[in-house]
Amino acid sequence: MKILFEHANILITEDDGFSEIKDGYLGVNGKRIDYIGKEKPKGSYDVIKDYTNKLLMPGLINTHCHAAMTMLRGLGSDLPLQEWLFEKMMPVEDRFTAESIRAASELALLEMISTGTTSFCDMYFINEATVLPCLESGIKANICRPMQSFDPADVYETMVRKLEADTLFSEYNGAGEGRILIDDSIHAEYTCSEAVVRAHAQTAKTRGTRMHIHLSETKREHEECISKYSKTPAQWFADLGIFDVPAYAAHCVWVSDEDIALMAEKGVSVMHNPSSNMKLGSGFAPIVKMQQAGINIALGTDGAASNNNLNMFEELHLASIIHKGYMQDSTVTKCTDTLRMATLNGAKLQGRPDTGALKAGNAADIIAIDLDKPHLFPNNDTVGLICYSAQGSDVCMTMVDGKILYENGEFLTMDREKVMFDARAAQKMLY
Amino acid sequence: MKILFEHANILITEDDGFSEIKDGYLGVNGKRIDYIGKEKPKGSYDVIKDYTNKLLMPGLINTHCHAAMTMLRGLGSDLPLQEWLFEKMMPVEDRFTAESIRAASELALLEMISTGTTSFCDMYFINEATVLPCLESGIKANICRPMQSFDPADVYETMVRKLEADTLFSEYNGAGEGRILIDDSIHAEYTCSEAVVRAHAQTAKTRGTRMHIHLSETKREHEECISKYSKTPAQWFADLGIFDVPAYAAHCVWVSDEDIALMAEKGVSVMHNPSSNMKLGSGFAPIVKMQQAGINIALGTDGAASNNNLNMFEELHLASIIHKGYMQDSTVTKCTDTLRMATLNGAKLQGRPDTGALKAGNAADIIAIDLDKPHLFPNNDTVGLICYSAQGSDVCMTMVDGKILYENGEFLTMDREKVMFDARAAQKMLY
Repeated sequence: MKILFEHANILITEDDGFSEIKDGYLGVNGKRIDYIGKEKPKGSYDVIKDYTNKLLMPGLINTHCHAAMTMLRGLGSDLPLQEWLFEKMMPVEDRFTAESIRAASELALLEMISTGTTSFCDMYFINEATVLPCLESGIKANICRPMQSFDPADVYETMVRKLEADTLFSEYNGAGEGRILIDDSIHAEYTCSEAVVRAHAQTAKTRGTRMHIHLSETKREHEECISKYSKTPAQWFADLGIFDVPAYAAHCVWVSDEDIALMAEKGVSVMHNPSSNMKLGSGFAPIVKMQQAGINIALGTDGAASNNNLNMFEELHLASIIHKGYMQDSTVTKCTDTLRMATLNGAKLQGRPDTGALKAGNAADIIAIDLDKPHLFPNNDTVGLICYSAQGSDVCMTMVDGKILYENGEFLTMDREKVMFDARAAQKMLY
Repeated sequence: MKILFEHANILITEDDGFSEIKDGYLGVNGKRIDYIGKEKPKGSYDVIKDYTNKLLMPGLINTHCHAAMTMLRGLGSDLPLQEWLFEKMMPVEDRFTAESIRAASELALLEMISTGTTSFCDMYFINEATVLPCLESGIKANICRPMQSFDPADVYETMVRKLEADTLFSEYNGAGEGRILIDDSIHAEYTCSEAVVRAHAQTAKTRGTRMHIHLSETKREHEECISKYSKTPAQWFADLGIFDVPAYAAHCVWVSDEDIALMAEKGVSVMHNPSSNMKLGSGFAPIVKMQQAGINIALGTDGAASNNNLNMFEELHLASIIHKGYMQDSTVTKCTDTLRMATLNGAKLQGRPDTGALKAGNAADIIAIDLDKPHLFPNNDTVGLICYSAQGSDVCMTMVDGKILYENGEFLTMDREKVMFDARAAQKMLY
């Protein structure tokens, strides 16, 4: 299938920031972008779409998510963290089945796809129940089963079998013509023994996977690690070999200056989750320092239990403004950098070098913003408009690998009513 | 006209928080709510609307806005404050005419009405050009012309004539059957002489108006006032009599503990503008301390130049999460308090005691949220859903004084296409 978008505004990722083609053409041939330009391309296309007053831009990449936690949305808002986690989250999570995780994941996909996410990283369990709806919907995802081992006597090989992490990798890595990638994961320092972490680093090294971890999310986690090991969580992970594979670390609210230098040296990517860090009272990640150190920073929503949505436009907005407020300086962050976090940096983190930017030859992972909205006029600065004014609901088209998943409010690869029905049924089973 | 909403969920404001009627009835008779209950009311209604899976809640009150600044949206993002203000804002504002302010205000009204604002406070100039579209659209507004006097030799009476503040009051206070109220205003401490402030406080006292001011928005403003007068802006305003009338103060980022005590004692309301305070690098208003002091805190967007939208759902979200992050405690603010800021507290600030809550006898200022959205399921906590998960675009109906202004994407009192056309024309005239 060849699709040509005509009369569209097209956001082009440059080495430094973005540029825009107005009233231009973007051609898609199969899974890839085959043309971007001001002039109409010469070849023929099967479908021509008039995208006047619409902005084509790279799909957003949500690099830290627990999709199935949509089913926990709104449980225990405003409670202390420990009470929220142990009394509200865990009892419901304990009752999760493959069926309910599948229903919850599908609900998450509706929200992500309709708000412009074309690829995400998911850390959860019974992963097949998340992988299958991803395959059916056409979205891209880096999926992982986090290692958790509270007992120092746990034997790595037994754990791997129990968690089915190897099976997940062998069955689904590269599935959907590469749309699904299976990554490895250690849940966090405070939930895993040293022996298991060391062994898992070796596994990832051997099979060439990326490693998804939580890192220094809360002050308590960071300080208790120092008390226990006389080192920070980042140093602990580095010493156990986790940073010798391509690692990506969520939150990083409490990382020290030395941690930042270490992570920059080791090429660790960071996922910034502003909604979740605010809502849970974790604090402000030192994003400006990390940028200065040259760390690859991406954006994520975290799960809907601590956000409470999977709308990357809200993360773009928050990441663009909160550090200005916190550091009392309107110049410390640029919206062009934030948009880069949500696109190109996320692509790098995911190991998908042909995504995250619109250019000929890249995968056609594209979203469109309907600019004919009162709150999107005047447009004096397109990237500013995306980060400071737009809402997730301004997305009018989501395409992954050249296939339109969502257009003008309709889902083309998912049955919205069935998903909503199944979600209601799953909720009744859970609580 | 009598309208009955049936099978609706209805959010009821209680003394402490909110309660909800599920599958209930809300009747509107003319301008007022005449019935709310679980049972179908006995009287007959002209129109019956099935609001299954929709939530009726009080309209949002945007207590700090400069509506015409929509025309400046996106100019100078990420610049230092002074450069943004003097090089980007003021040159365009100097070219504003009644025609362009009218076009810009209409654009603002489209955005506010479609995202659930039923009443707002506006501080700007050539106010008639904002009042007239408010009257036509049916929204409620407290409008003021701020006093600004940079020359100590300015004579109050001459200034009032020049700014036409008296004419505005005599012509439009109470217009539209009370939907328009004209308030008085001092722009800020740093833009007004003591003599003018003192005289204006007397005017407000005499005619019984409220007073809209900017207060301690930036550290620089706060500290320069102390250097100049050996008192804080709040103390300065109090000493000049401004707090002896019902005053409402925007921002209050840098107010001291003594200022908070003074404002609580004097009954000064505060407008919290989290987007603007973050984006301009002003900082975090001490909302928790103000709540503890018993101050009436409301919410506002500020102008679209420093936000960059007029979407109160984003302010609800930000006000609900940023203080948790800043104070590293998920329990310091409750979403029920934030929603109260955006409704009942705003009504109190505006001097509209029959608005801000849904109950029989109150003005029918009502919005509806379409709950049939993937990101609004499951609903474990309706107020949390509004503050943490909902978007402005989830509003499917906006009613003011019993008249529907917006329903299912259509504006019933405004010509959307004409407004967008006029806005484009106005922008071309301005820059």
